[in-house]
Amino acid sequence: MNGARSLLTTLVDQGVDVCFANPGTSEMHFVAALDTVPGMRGVLTLFEGVATGAADGYARMSGKPAAVLLHLGPGLGNGLANLHNARRAHVPMVVVVGDHATYHKKYDAPLESDIDALAHTVSGWVRRTLDVGDIAVDAVDAVAASRAGVVSTMIVPADVSWNDGEPTEPLPAGHPAPGIDDDAVREAADALNSGVPTVLLVGGDATLAPGLSAAVRIAERTGAKVLCETFPARLQRGAGVPAVERLAYFAEGAEAQLVGAEHLILAGAASPVSFFAYPGRPSDLVPQGCEVHVLAGHSGAAAALEQLADDVAPGTTASVAPLMRPDLPTGELTAFSAAAVIGALLPEGAVVVDESNTAGVGVAAATAGAPGHDVLTLTGGAIGYGMPAAIGAAMAAPDRPVLSLQADGSAMYTVSALWTQARENLDVTTVIFGNGAYDILRIELQRVGAENAATPGPSALRLLDLGSPTLDFVKIAEGMGVPARRVSTAEDLAAALTEAFAAPGPHLIEAVVPSLVNT
Amino acid sequence: MNGARSLLTTLVDQGVDVCFANPGTSEMHFVAALDTVPGMRGVLTLFEGVATGAADGYARMSGKPAAVLLHLGPGLGNGLANLHNARRAHVPMVVVVGDHATYHKKYDAPLESDIDALAHTVSGWVRRTLDVGDIAVDAVDAVAASRAGVVSTMIVPADVSWNDGEPTEPLPAGHPAPGIDDDAVREAADALNSGVPTVLLVGGDATLAPGLSAAVRIAERTGAKVLCETFPARLQRGAGVPAVERLAYFAEGAEAQLVGAEHLILAGAASPVSFFAYPGRPSDLVPQGCEVHVLAGHSGAAAALEQLADDVAPGTTASVAPLMRPDLPTGELTAFSAAAVIGALLPEGAVVVDESNTAGVGVAAATAGAPGHDVLTLTGGAIGYGMPAAIGAAMAAPDRPVLSLQADGSAMYTVSALWTQARENLDVTTVIFGNGAYDILRIELQRVGAENAATPGPSALRLLDLGSPTLDFVKIAEGMGVPARRVSTAEDLAAALTEAFAAPGPHLIEAVVPSLVNT
Repeated sequence: MNGARSLLTTLVDQGVDVCFANPGTSEMHFVAALDTVPGMRGVLTLFEGVATGAADGYARMSGKPAAVLLHLGPGLGNGLANLHNARRAHVPMVVVVGDHATYHKKYDAPLESDIDALAHTVSGWVRRTLDVGDIAVDAVDAVAASRAGVVSTMIVPADVSWNDGEPTEPLPAGHPAPGIDDDAVREAADALNSGVPTVLLVGGDATLAPGLSAAVRIAERTGAKVLCETFPARLQRGAGVPAVERLAYFAEGAEAQLVGAEHLILAGAASPVSFFAYPGRPSDLVPQGCEVHVLAGHSGAAAALEQLADDVAPGTTASVAPLMRPDLPTGELTAFSAAAVIGALLPEGAVVVDESNTAGVGVAAATAGAPGHDVLTLTGGAIGYGMPAAIGAAMAAPDRPVLSLQADGSAMYTVSALWTQARENLDVTTVIFGNGAYDILRIELQRVGAENAATPGPSALRLLDLGSPTLDFVKIAEGMGVPARRVSTAEDLAAALTEAFAAPGPHLIEAVVPSLVNT
Repeated sequence: MNGARSLLTTLVDQGVDVCFANPGTSEMHFVAALDTVPGMRGVLTLFEGVATGAADGYARMSGKPAAVLLHLGPGLGNGLANLHNARRAHVPMVVVVGDHATYHKKYDAPLESDIDALAHTVSGWVRRTLDVGDIAVDAVDAVAASRAGVVSTMIVPADVSWNDGEPTEPLPAGHPAPGIDDDAVREAADALNSGVPTVLLVGGDATLAPGLSAAVRIAERTGAKVLCETFPARLQRGAGVPAVERLAYFAEGAEAQLVGAEHLILAGAASPVSFFAYPGRPSDLVPQGCEVHVLAGHSGAAAALEQLADDVAPGTTASVAPLMRPDLPTGELTAFSAAAVIGALLPEGAVVVDESNTAGVGVAAATAGAPGHDVLTLTGGAIGYGMPAAIGAAMAAPDRPVLSLQADGSAMYTVSALWTQARENLDVTTVIFGNGAYDILRIELQRVGAENAATPGPSALRLLDLGSPTLDFVKIAEGMGVPARRVSTAEDLAAALTEAFAAPGPHLIEAVVPSLVNT
């Protein structure tokens, strides 16, 4: 058996059954093996950043790793931004990067580059397989390592793929989930019982219903305030799910949410810091004098919260959000009326992939009482995440509708994701918020105190503007095989969404909304 | 003066007057400074890989560095593939990567990553500026280093941009071009005069008319064979320019070109190696027993060749290619008839950016006798180069028509380059060879000896196929503001090209051609 087939067989044996790929010459043996090893679904993407984002979305919704097949250093480079987001989301993923044959590297052929250095910047586990006999062992280890919530990267030279060999029998590998730290639970309970203002910040695996229920039970009994990390990998919310407020993106908002806290308990979330630094403003958002307690890391946070809830709030159950949709608005579309339309129509069980950025400012409030749904967010801040992640989410949850909320600027990063949505006939409805600008940067230009920020000059504004020419997402989507329409009133958005949710397969709606910033 | 303004002022002083940008929050002070420092043209791209590819194309045609402005690690990651190509092209470029404020890094905010590690994989010079007083010095050094033909990467923390400071006076910096190695010239002359079969392989700065003239003079006098490296950064050719054959991409072809050579003289080119390794085939393409002589590296190769020509072929002048165009073909379009149409109509002084890959197989022969033109090629093999490079080439040579020959698969990597072509109203005519497949990989699948390669299975073929759904480049281009049409006959291609060359501004022609591979 050659190395490629051994690798593929091992991945399938380990439960990895989807591979998002953009292969090249050095991966052709892996590609050929797809027809001889049953059980792996190969999905072509037209750009590596789509493959890595799709694997992230898949992992968030399935809880298990997908494989990604990339071509040498440039292929990995193209996939890095969404691997960065995946690293921040603590999702499992197995990235296979083909490399030149071992003996070919010294010739410094045109595609030679330092793959290992790139891989280490985003991966929790990296290994270069140098002998075909090791490839099954390496694949077992890669999958096991990834299940702890990291990107595992296997670098596989072409000759290791094409050589035949006797695979070494893999040893059982495992990264057991961390146990509950009883001391940390006791310390958190003491803080909660102290009677002083306490905030419980949840993240990691505590943003699904069980962790949220435990957190809300604690809050309802002790008077603590529950907040959710700003960018959860996967947040369950809506009617029937305990509601938690997310920590604000802008530091001023987060400071207001945390003001007065004397204890801050971290359950799966990192200690709150400003997304960016701003002149004269603090980076660390923990209020002065507030004591920070780490209850649990991103993995095992839900279990620790449940033990804590049984300690401080025994026998209670958490309140849940009621079903409460906004009325359908009418008239010219705005960011807020678009959000209301979405809140009014969001289907039961939807998966909302949210990269709507500034234009999505009203969505969280408008959907708080919609039927239960999941939200996937931009964990690492590297834009170009949403449309690829929607591919993976739709494949992991084929019976659930996926709503991909997308900013126009971010959409252009990985727009070819639409083609894969069409090819795989995925049930993804994409709403592009078309405000014709990098609106977030128009806001940030002022917030960072840049010179002339109040009255920016034409050169600066031109770098933040997406007009001239206007992007026509209807044509772009149709050019990639996704039916699309443009709307500029709330009524038309409602009609378009209703139709898209009713029909299987991908759809795109360009929702024209005004910029939030006057320029 | 704040750091951003100091940086911008210094870059302009050093002759850098174009900046391809996709900025974020950490670069807002640089963006604002564009309105206070005259002399820098900021050009927005919708993806970082477009910015880096544009800077490469600009450098190849202008001979000088452009600046690139990128946002943190993910922005640099998105730009890496075209920085890889630029590294292989030995072009000057100054990449400015904004980073978190110095004091903010320890908080591991969501966008934090190892920028330095990424930068080192593609850059010949990397520096992180830690004090605003140093930024002018660092910028002078970056520009000087880049002029030796490397990517210089400056990592600029946000607080260094926004702090005010007294800039340290830069020391004069320089990287003088390497002088001619007289011993190497003598050794090459001896080889040429030895009377045994000798090949002169030219590359680097010897692929413009002066170097080519010297090489052809040498060949015509001594009987040596001149070959050009497979992927020259910029090759001058066509009527009035000495003609050289390029070393073939596939190793079998290159071996046939080199067979029998007893001396191989490298003038700006690397010793020939196979692009990829193939089972049972050599990586090193130098014939057994052939002696290799290094006349010059990529820089200074033309000068060394001129001295060598004056030594072995004094008083001669080189033959040049005659003006000789193919007749305009008719009928259904094929890769070869499309090439003939291009050869028949290529305007005088055109800049041809060639990422046509397999479908462009006939273009070199068909344009050999077209009026003098330049060809930019995919030096590093990282696809997604052509449409961005066309931006830079058009800006560096605004009076020359740019013809961007593009494979459909590669086009989708950085397709948003079309939007920047439209915004800047660049005179770029893009021809997409639409064969609906990664044809090169269909060929490579067989060449690497993959199992079942002769009759690949449906899973393998599906990963190499760009149909289902068919990409509609006319809609995609129109969606980004570039007028477009689709042609499937030679007559229609001729009409479309004639019209596009006559009208200023960008145009796109989707030329539907059959795949070269039967599947």
